Amino acid sequence: MTRDALLLGVDVGGTTTAAGAVTREGAVLVEQRVLTHRDGKGRAPETIIELLGSVREQAERRGHAVEAIGVGVPGPVDPTVGRIGEHVPHVPELAGRALAAELAERFGRPAFVDNDVNALALGEWMFGAGRGAHSLVVLAPGTGFGAGIVLESRLVRGAAGFGGELGHTPVKFDGPPCWCGGRGCLALYASGRGIAEAARARVAGLPDAPLLTAAGGDPRAITAPLVFRAAREGDAVASAVVDEACRALGAMLGAVVNGLNPELIVLTGGVAESLVPLEAQILQRAAEYAFRAALARTRVTIVPGDKRTSMRGAAALAIYEIARAGGGTP
Amino acid sequence: MTRDALLLGVDVGGTTTAAGAVTREGAVLVEQRVLTHRDGKGRAPETIIELLGSVREQAERRGHAVEAIGVGVPGPVDPTVGRIGEHVPHVPELAGRALAAELAERFGRPAFVDNDVNALALGEWMFGAGRGAHSLVVLAPGTGFGAGIVLESRLVRGAAGFGGELGHTPVKFDGPPCWCGGRGCLALYASGRGIAEAARARVAGLPDAPLLTAAGGDPRAITAPLVFRAAREGDAVASAVVDEACRALGAMLGAVVNGLNPELIVLTGGVAESLVPLEAQILQRAAEYAFRAALARTRVTIVPGDKRTSMRGAAALAIYEIARAGGGTP
Repeated sequence: MTRDALLLGVDVGGTTTAAGAVTREGAVLVEQRVLTHRDGKGRAPETIIELLGSVREQAERRGHAVEAIGVGVPGPVDPTVGRIGEHVPHVPELAGRALAAELAERFGRPAFVDNDVNALALGEWMFGAGRGAHSLVVLAPGTGFGAGIVLESRLVRGAAGFGGELGHTPVKFDGPPCWCGGRGCLALYASGRGIAEAARARVAGLPDAPLLTAAGGDPRAITAPLVFRAAREGDAVASAVVDEACRALGAMLGAVVNGLNPELIVLTGGVAESLVPLEAQILQRAAEYAFRAALARTRVTIVPGDKRTSMRGAAALAIYEIARAGGGTP
Repeated sequence: MTRDALLLGVDVGGTTTAAGAVTREGAVLVEQRVLTHRDGKGRAPETIIELLGSVREQAERRGHAVEAIGVGVPGPVDPTVGRIGEHVPHVPELAGRALAAELAERFGRPAFVDNDVNALALGEWMFGAGRGAHSLVVLAPGTGFGAGIVLESRLVRGAAGFGGELGHTPVKFDGPPCWCGGRGCLALYASGRGIAEAARARVAGLPDAPLLTAAGGDPRAITAPLVFRAAREGDAVASAVVDEACRALGAMLGAVVNGLNPELIVLTGGVAESLVPLEAQILQRAAEYAFRAALARTRVTIVPGDKRTSMRGAAALAIYEIARAGGGTP
């Protein structure tokens, strides 16, 4: 008996890479993870290929053929030439590689590579909170701040593959410099790195700050989860940082609601879990910036994601691209 | 001899309403303007209908049939029900009206109504600076600050018709309240009204400010064109206001380049003419916020528009909608 053909979806992370064999309905039938840098520095592409081979073998052993491969990578991908951009800080060996073409040749199947949060947005749209919507925006604060945009049933890639890099929207045009080279970016206020750095800056002159004590006296040990926890426990410094994160996120939600007005905004990524108890506060901030009539038609939801969601997103990317090549949308 | 069927394009402004008979190539063959409130308060719809009838008659006299009608209005339009929104400050009698259905019935032709800058974006895309592009964003600072977005060859309307309201993007999340009810909006810094109000606020405590003298001592006589002129002549207060406008515009350009990464951004609208001599300054500011690799692929151009451009945009709206109804894009 021949079973349904599956999609192979791969999420390449700075630490872990996960691959899955996924049905067209988003069910993950096979799943495997490895450390991205397991085979040593600079060898992520080989690791990805080996992982894909292993997942394919497991799928085939269960009677499934492989239809196509989708890969999400932590950096922009130029859609006109299918090439990964030059800035992939966590997996630098991917920079500039035409990974899709390499995988298609290696596995004899159509292969597609895109930014990981673009893939995640497609996954939320096809299988997740955005099912049935025509438009959604995914905001994914993690260590950095990724985002993905689906409008009018199309993924917004942009001319050079930067479509959806909303994490580096200036939410304060006279704000401080950002590590991206910009200024006043959302990521400074609401990403894991931004939150940790903001808290470190605030305790710098306060040797007795409880937040510093909670970090064992070492400012470098202040992390975003620690800041969120301390804020929940009433720490003043942490609360100020978290309040600013909520304001900046609220401003971004307002900008998205007013400017793109999607049916749905999904807040996800590594920081999302810490945002769940802050949902009311974030929505209240959003209402300070958004048109009421526009906000009334945009649903905002916080969905802490995981590797499986990302894998499904990569599979969704393959489904999306196959449909586009056929002249339609999924 | 039967000539090509034409589109009737109408731009409804707070002061003037212009209608034209336009070819599918964007040539305006007939053109007529009236004062929007000519027939008295609350009678703009009747004025629009009469104007359309007159332009149709002129087109028919020249041997052209009318294919469809497109109308741009200064407010959001709900795309799901084809109804103009509740907030149309300059032509309040249009609020809540299903104008497209009314015109279609009156003239026996397909009729389409959308936000004026959405229509303008379609016009720039089909007939103007954006010809051949897949994506463009129009930023139109006038008295207020409109915008329109075409991505992946689709107009971004949004769930409630607010798609493209980038003028009310918070560019400073801890900025002052905006007249829209938001806070720190781009329009506060870079629209005609925002620039005039910012200058008035700055001269409030300075009875000897040259800018105030140039306005005949009456702060209410300070207008955006006056501020731009005074800045060009070296006035310190005006220069500070214009510098802040350029920074906020640069931040918005950065946000659009990083987040949507269109092939083209067109700066137009009533303020655009004053921005032409500032082009280098605005682009330099944009480079402070945008990713270099993304900015390298987005062209930015300043195109002072006029009523004719807006009429052509309204005709482009009709062409776009007819193509969409047929399942394609123009």
